[in-house]
Amino acid sequence: MNAFSSLDHEFDIDGDTLHEECGVFGILGHPDAATLTALGLHALQHRGQEAAGIVSFDGQRFHSERRMGLVGDHYTDPVTLAKLPGNIAIGHVRYSTTGEVALRNVQPLFAELEVGGIAIAHNGNFTNGLTLRRQLIAGGAICQSTSDTEVVLHLIARSRYTSTADRFIDAIRQMEGGYSMLAITRTKLIAARDPTGIRPLVMGELDGKPIFASETCALDIIGAKFVRDVENGEVIICEIQPDGSISIDARKAGNQKPERLCLFEYVYFARPDSMVGGRSVYVARKNMGINLAKEAPVEADVIVPVPDGGTPAALGYAQASGIPFEYGIIRNHYVGRTFIEPTQQIRAFGVKLKHSANRAVIEGKRVVLVDDSIVRGTTSLKIVQMIRDAGAREVHIRVASPMIFYPDFYGIDTPDAHKLLANQYSTLEAMGKYIGADSLEFLSINGLYRAVGGKDRDAANPQFTDHYFTGEYPTRLLDKESEKTGNKISLLASNG
Amino acid sequence: MNAFSSLDHEFDIDGDTLHEECGVFGILGHPDAATLTALGLHALQHRGQEAAGIVSFDGQRFHSERRMGLVGDHYTDPVTLAKLPGNIAIGHVRYSTTGEVALRNVQPLFAELEVGGIAIAHNGNFTNGLTLRRQLIAGGAICQSTSDTEVVLHLIARSRYTSTADRFIDAIRQMEGGYSMLAITRTKLIAARDPTGIRPLVMGELDGKPIFASETCALDIIGAKFVRDVENGEVIICEIQPDGSISIDARKAGNQKPERLCLFEYVYFARPDSMVGGRSVYVARKNMGINLAKEAPVEADVIVPVPDGGTPAALGYAQASGIPFEYGIIRNHYVGRTFIEPTQQIRAFGVKLKHSANRAVIEGKRVVLVDDSIVRGTTSLKIVQMIRDAGAREVHIRVASPMIFYPDFYGIDTPDAHKLLANQYSTLEAMGKYIGADSLEFLSINGLYRAVGGKDRDAANPQFTDHYFTGEYPTRLLDKESEKTGNKISLLASNG
Amino acid sequence: MNAFSSLDHEFDIDGDTLHEECGVFGILGHPDAATLTALGLHALQHRGQEAAGIVSFDGQRFHSERRMGLVGDHYTDPVTLAKLPGNIAIGHVRYSTTGEVALRNVQPLFAELEVGGIAIAHNGNFTNGLTLRRQLIAGGAICQSTSDTEVVLHLIARSRYTSTADRFIDAIRQMEGGYSMLAITRTKLIAARDPTGIRPLVMGELDGKPIFASETCALDIIGAKFVRDVENGEVIICEIQPDGSISIDARKAGNQKPERLCLFEYVYFARPDSMVGGRSVYVARKNMGINLAKEAPVEADVIVPVPDGGTPAALGYAQASGIPFEYGIIRNHYVGRTFIEPTQQIRAFGVKLKHSANRAVIEGKRVVLVDDSIVRGTTSLKIVQMIRDAGAREVHIRVASPMIFYPDFYGIDTPDAHKLLANQYSTLEAMGKYIGADSLEFLSINGLYRAVGGKDRDAANPQFTDHYFTGEYPTRLLDKESEKTGNKISLLASNG
Amino acid sequence: MNAFSSLDHEFDIDGDTLHEECGVFGILGHPDAATLTALGLHALQHRGQEAAGIVSFDGQRFHSERRMGLVGDHYTDPVTLAKLPGNIAIGHVRYSTTGEVALRNVQPLFAELEVGGIAIAHNGNFTNGLTLRRQLIAGGAICQSTSDTEVVLHLIARSRYTSTADRFIDAIRQMEGGYSMLAITRTKLIAARDPTGIRPLVMGELDGKPIFASETCALDIIGAKFVRDVENGEVIICEIQPDGSISIDARKAGNQKPERLCLFEYVYFARPDSMVGGRSVYVARKNMGINLAKEAPVEADVIVPVPDGGTPAALGYAQASGIPFEYGIIRNHYVGRTFIEPTQQIRAFGVKLKHSANRAVIEGKRVVLVDDSIVRGTTSLKIVQMIRDAGAREVHIRVASPMIFYPDFYGIDTPDAHKLLANQYSTLEAMGKYIGADSLEFLSINGLYRAVGGKDRDAANPQFTDHYFTGEYPTRLLDKESEKTGNKISLLASNG
Repeated sequence: MNAFSSLDHEFDIDGDTLHEECGVFGILGHPDAATLTALGLHALQHRGQEAAGIVSFDGQRFHSERRMGLVGDHYTDPVTLAKLPGNIAIGHVRYSTTGEVALRNVQPLFAELEVGGIAIAHNGNFTNGLTLRRQLIAGGAICQSTSDTEVVLHLIARSRYTSTADRFIDAIRQMEGGYSMLAITRTKLIAARDPTGIRPLVMGELDGKPIFASETCALDIIGAKFVRDVENGEVIICEIQPDGSISIDARKAGNQKPERLCLFEYVYFARPDSMVGGRSVYVARKNMGINLAKEAPVEADVIVPVPDGGTPAALGYAQASGIPFEYGIIRNHYVGRTFIEPTQQIRAFGVKLKHSANRAVIEGKRVVLVDDSIVRGTTSLKIVQMIRDAGAREVHIRVASPMIFYPDFYGIDTPDAHKLLANQYSTLEAMGKYIGADSLEFLSINGLYRAVGGKDRDAANPQFTDHYFTGEYPTRLLDKESEKTGNKISLLASNG
Repeated sequence: MNAFSSLDHEFDIDGDTLHEECGVFGILGHPDAATLTALGLHALQHRGQEAAGIVSFDGQRFHSERRMGLVGDHYTDPVTLAKLPGNIAIGHVRYSTTGEVALRNVQPLFAELEVGGIAIAHNGNFTNGLTLRRQLIAGGAICQSTSDTEVVLHLIARSRYTSTADRFIDAIRQMEGGYSMLAITRTKLIAARDPTGIRPLVMGELDGKPIFASETCALDIIGAKFVRDVENGEVIICEIQPDGSISIDARKAGNQKPERLCLFEYVYFARPDSMVGGRSVYVARKNMGINLAKEAPVEADVIVPVPDGGTPAALGYAQASGIPFEYGIIRNHYVGRTFIEPTQQIRAFGVKLKHSANRAVIEGKRVVLVDDSIVRGTTSLKIVQMIRDAGAREVHIRVASPMIFYPDFYGIDTPDAHKLLANQYSTLEAMGKYIGADSLEFLSINGLYRAVGGKDRDAANPQFTDHYFTGEYPTRLLDKESEKTGNKISLLASNG
Repeated sequence: MNAFSSLDHEFDIDGDTLHEECGVFGILGHPDAATLTALGLHALQHRGQEAAGIVSFDGQRFHSERRMGLVGDHYTDPVTLAKLPGNIAIGHVRYSTTGEVALRNVQPLFAELEVGGIAIAHNGNFTNGLTLRRQLIAGGAICQSTSDTEVVLHLIARSRYTSTADRFIDAIRQMEGGYSMLAITRTKLIAARDPTGIRPLVMGELDGKPIFASETCALDIIGAKFVRDVENGEVIICEIQPDGSISIDARKAGNQKPERLCLFEYVYFARPDSMVGGRSVYVARKNMGINLAKEAPVEADVIVPVPDGGTPAALGYAQASGIPFEYGIIRNHYVGRTFIEPTQQIRAFGVKLKHSANRAVIEGKRVVLVDDSIVRGTTSLKIVQMIRDAGAREVHIRVASPMIFYPDFYGIDTPDAHKLLANQYSTLEAMGKYIGADSLEFLSINGLYRAVGGKDRDAANPQFTDHYFTGEYPTRLLDKESEKTGNKISLLASNG
Repeated sequence: MNAFSSLDHEFDIDGDTLHEECGVFGILGHPDAATLTALGLHALQHRGQEAAGIVSFDGQRFHSERRMGLVGDHYTDPVTLAKLPGNIAIGHVRYSTTGEVALRNVQPLFAELEVGGIAIAHNGNFTNGLTLRRQLIAGGAICQSTSDTEVVLHLIARSRYTSTADRFIDAIRQMEGGYSMLAITRTKLIAARDPTGIRPLVMGELDGKPIFASETCALDIIGAKFVRDVENGEVIICEIQPDGSISIDARKAGNQKPERLCLFEYVYFARPDSMVGGRSVYVARKNMGINLAKEAPVEADVIVPVPDGGTPAALGYAQASGIPFEYGIIRNHYVGRTFIEPTQQIRAFGVKLKHSANRAVIEGKRVVLVDDSIVRGTTSLKIVQMIRDAGAREVHIRVASPMIFYPDFYGIDTPDAHKLLANQYSTLEAMGKYIGADSLEFLSINGLYRAVGGKDRDAANPQFTDHYFTGEYPTRLLDKESEKTGNKISLLASNG
């Protein structure tokens, strides 16, 4: 999800969007650590709107605040920030799957270890989290949350290494999946990225103090400099030295594979003003539109973005095709978090609660709707109907990414596979008919690869993570396989 | 304010925006009256986010719900809607000036009259409200709110006419200013627009039942047909007849003057997908940008809208100039109503909490920022700085409306005149220097008139209300004049 | 209701208690006016727990805070009190009948009159409020609340007298019923009691500044001196003079009748530590128990009060009878305002949620339960069962007031007459059998009169108001009679 | 604290009361497990008002609800109870020391063990909790809360025994201190009481299903039968068998010492209608008053209880002395949880916010105030002043327990020793003078022993826990001793 579509999550009547599960931010050695973390998390809010947490360390004690709601709902409050003193802090924003809305699962998680306290937060998902959890429990560990972060804490606590850094790396090595992880101890800020580099993580610097964040937009908001991407399989340990200086020790966890960033960061999740893997997300999206215009041209009068996700691609399509770009769909921003469970009558108005057709640019026109992606298609169907009701002569849909066939296991919350539009109909025609469009086209996988990385997909060594389109997963899926054997843990359902 | 800038109100750190005070909606004879009113108000939310109220009549009793907050916060709730039974309803959304945040002032207001109950809601402002209030109090009336709507209720109650409709018209005739007003009685829905037609009001129809709303977007959301604009100085009385049919009686209040719609509805307030005075707001805004490109061209690399208000004009400017349109400023939608009173530290981040520069399209470029209007200029200053920080080579500002010099008295909440940018500096150069722009240009008054109405301003009989630019007020300002004499009423300060 | 039974209202599952509608407090000329009013209202909280309001005047403006909830929930807050500056204040606590829970009806009410602002609050009820309301509406007045206080404001506003005091008296003269009323203007604090003196009102003094309150306990809490009772039919006008001194002008409204205080103030409503009509409420209640012991003796082992209302009478009964007094019923104080709408399952536990039997003093004993009054008898039934379950050998009920047969119209919220126990069964035996008691006796009307006033009831000129027992109303009941003619006003149902 | 003083905690301006930290309730095999647990906790509310939690098991999953606030605030709600399905449940109410108000610490705590899930709740305190925590952390355990319950979970998880019951007993054996503990697994309800039996725990039965609760009043509310006290050092394991029957297995943990119930349960904490250790709390308190009358007689006119704690003792004193018992102090029940942080001005009114003198029974009298205990004496001082202000001729204080000199380590939150009245003055005269009483006397330790158990204290083997009076602790105090060595863990400060 990006800033162009930012309130989608909160009023997703049809369950027709993808959700990213988290964003992280950390800073070491800065007197305003918690305030800067709050600002960084605010910039990362598009990565998770359900809850936000910050842990700081003030030289004596760790301080933790975890709250349901937006960063701006709590962490701009002087009273709350005053409870987070110290010059070391990490924070986390999260989206949570239904039924797990537990404050108990809100990160960062903290534990007292023999070597001292540690707080951890991560973005992404472990593909062997459940497997490890079972082993830990068998070994006498107690698990109080359903969060995989707790598993990491246990691995660190039980590691036979002595230093926190070594224990952290020892733990990380055992975790499989796609994740970016931050940790703080009494003197350190540690950052790690998964061996394949599926989830992004960047390093920045403000006033000479190291910062890590999921995206560069979190650096921009506080005026921090971008230093570099954390590399896949890398662990960076920043530590305040006795003389007040900060040492930075970048290591390899020893489990690297070729980097494969998640393509959906470019298609949908990352903010358009962020640089991900050294590439402008906005430019990548415009390129998707440009390539789409080449691959799937159509004779039409007007290019209309499906707000807000489809906007950059629509602009690219318009510039490449020479067809005028117009705001044919107007967004009602007041459909927000507080839109309470509406009556059935009101739910029936569906997409109109959020979008309205701008008849002045649609009536009598051949309209091309450009969207970033199609998940279930239920929203597309309603938008097409709305555009037709406003008098469009023709409605063509152009989607700036390939068809989605497969579920994700690295932190993206996807619907059941059989609910995906691409799995419900076997031909473009059938899909288009379902949606009610005069034509429907998707960007090719190579079109997407070129838009992002400039080159076609290398089938032998794909440059990006793309399993939702291709079915080729970049890691093994241990938990998923063991699930088939049915040995499920009866976890706690909890709300408080 | 429009849907392109919709959350501005809630996080307007600098007091650098204009606020419209209200939106109204009413429907007669429909079994889902309250639900449809809630939907209509939701579509009009951009006209007022502070509070919303609905009054319905169920054949026996009137029912009233008035709440602080957004429509979606309360009026989509089955429980709340169940408290508003009946097939007659009117509703109101309001923005309120600071210090008057009293539930007591939230409309619609209800009164029991000899002829039966009546509920009233209006958008706009009366220029002789205080004068009439003083006369009423001298005549033994009691005033419990500081709302002018209460004055209208008194005038109706004290009218010597017998029918409600005649009493309503009698009251309306005594009111001066700019307003659109709706009322319901046990059988009627009454709509009225001020003699000059400063504030908009449209008539629609759903399933044969009459509807009135501030803007056409409130008709669109419920799939109602647009019938016509209520005319200036017109009173339309719709009544359920004993046989269930609905009579519609359109009268003139007898005080008409030539119509002069408020230009700011086109520049900023109305939603771009609304038709106001028969004209597409979106097309008018694009025309402003086109005219601006002609009047104030500049050699540049990229046209960047200041979101969200400047977007249509920027698109028009780009199309007219041939310079590429790019999203150089990204909006953070999560700066919302709940952004609590931030620490001073966080306030200092100002505009960055809401906007960020999209460096990829700005760095090294000559940038033209297109905005809809400039009030105090404090926000513009910060945006220019942000764009420069992102590496722009030049920053030019083009404003799609003329300079604002004068206060409004018809429902727009303007800052003190001496705080308006146009009153602080005598030359464009000085203003531009203050803001930090390489150049600054405003659309001419004729350029604006042509964008909206196709013709230059007729100095003898201006086609629109434009006093904020010209100082020429369309009505006399009785309260304002009497204020000079100092006879002020010591009104109640209240919060509950 | 008294402090011995104070949380009854909030968890009255069976609607088996009587509710008093209000308490008032006012002070003039004291720099801590609002704070002292808050404390006085806190002491009067037993007279109304639904809402509380305070209006103050600071020399320039009136300030009003009205809130649902307890005094301690809002009015001890420094922030709230800071919104009520000035040295003149009145306040009000209220209980409201179901369905009228509207902030709009919370007192004090304020109106701007020609002579300046006025705020009014009253305890009690007008028996011609609706009749006057109809006349006012016919005369062009608008009524926005369903509160009779608004009627008083209209009468004051329309009075042909010039001074506020004369207007107030003019208005009061037109009102019939039982009430105590306080008003403030820019310089005055006015107190009035109804012609028959049904509702109590006392005058006190603190630091030389006049105070009025419903009961003396509100004087005690702030260390104020009791000066005297306001007399029935009296209006006392206190005014700050230009030199800062305070004038006190006591007048008769000219409509006095012989004083008849409401007996239920002694039986149940007033706090036991209050002096009402110069008599200790606590002593009166003990006397009721003493007289009851004489009138209705019983051979038993233990006297058990039904908490909290029956406690003083039980103590009197025990002392007069020589039977030991024991706490056989323990109260759970945590059944409070926040006990949310419970499941049916939990409701079934009924009286046990609030009371439990103290088996150690009940088992095997002949128990006398002493209660202050019986309304519907539904609670008594459950308590008897509970006492039997705890092993009592016999259970006798002694009620320290006569049987209730008739509704009240002076501010006590009584159930429908046919739901009163005394109207459901024609004999004591039948009532006792319904309740499950071995015997049931009520105090005689003369026993009650002697307990309170020392003398038997004077049938020709009863010394107290006692219609709920006798059917003899101290005033005519104009609204009630006109109700039969069916000319009902269709008032607004409102929640906000 | 008992039901006679139940709201003291919430408005304890002076920190002049003792606080008990918890109450527990559990039930096995009943279809309404969570509802009955909610009712039981409601009856135990006097043992902890800060937070309440319930965990249930529905055959598949554990369900947990933990909330700040009273039981009646949340757990009577159908919506909340519906989230706690199943026929096994335990619950917990808690009082928490300042600064640890963390939802995270609210019990019951849950953990997934190899043998399946387990939830635990306890009342009391471990005297070696910190010592064990240090050992566990050194062994690779992670501690996420500051609650000792977490330590028990770790000990169970790490036990080398295989069955849950054996693991539970293994863990219990390592814990020292005073506690009553309940646990549930997928089929079991386990109850345990500390070796010395400091904290109470009773076993009951409803519809043939076993129940455990801190006090018998929790059985009474649901109509359950009392079966017996759980013995000190006993572990009772109830298990649902495959055939639906319930097995009950009572074992000794093997660490018993002679039973010594906490005397403060009798003096102050337990509800008067509870049976603790087979003795009526109410009767014990009356006996304390009777013994006090014999030990410390005084010539006086009236015996006045200090509400609510002193009431039963005052009644005993009155009966033994023949001096009349009167309600000389009236309680304002509306000083409750929601009394928000008051202004300094209002705080100054102190004790008057909660209590008022009933002048009618005090004026001109020689008054004996009977209180249950004196902690700091700050409240007593104010009450004496209030009684004098109401005109008492003499004021004598009689305290129904001995002087408190020493802190508690078994779950009672005591002020710092130097703040205790008994440690501030060396003679009764000096204490009495400080408080302003004409005389001050305390019950002797033998007087208290006889009131509760019928016999004098056996110095060699005291029958009860009485260290707060005597300094003789019933267990060793491991954590306290190790504290002196300074090896403190830097625990997390957290609010969410």
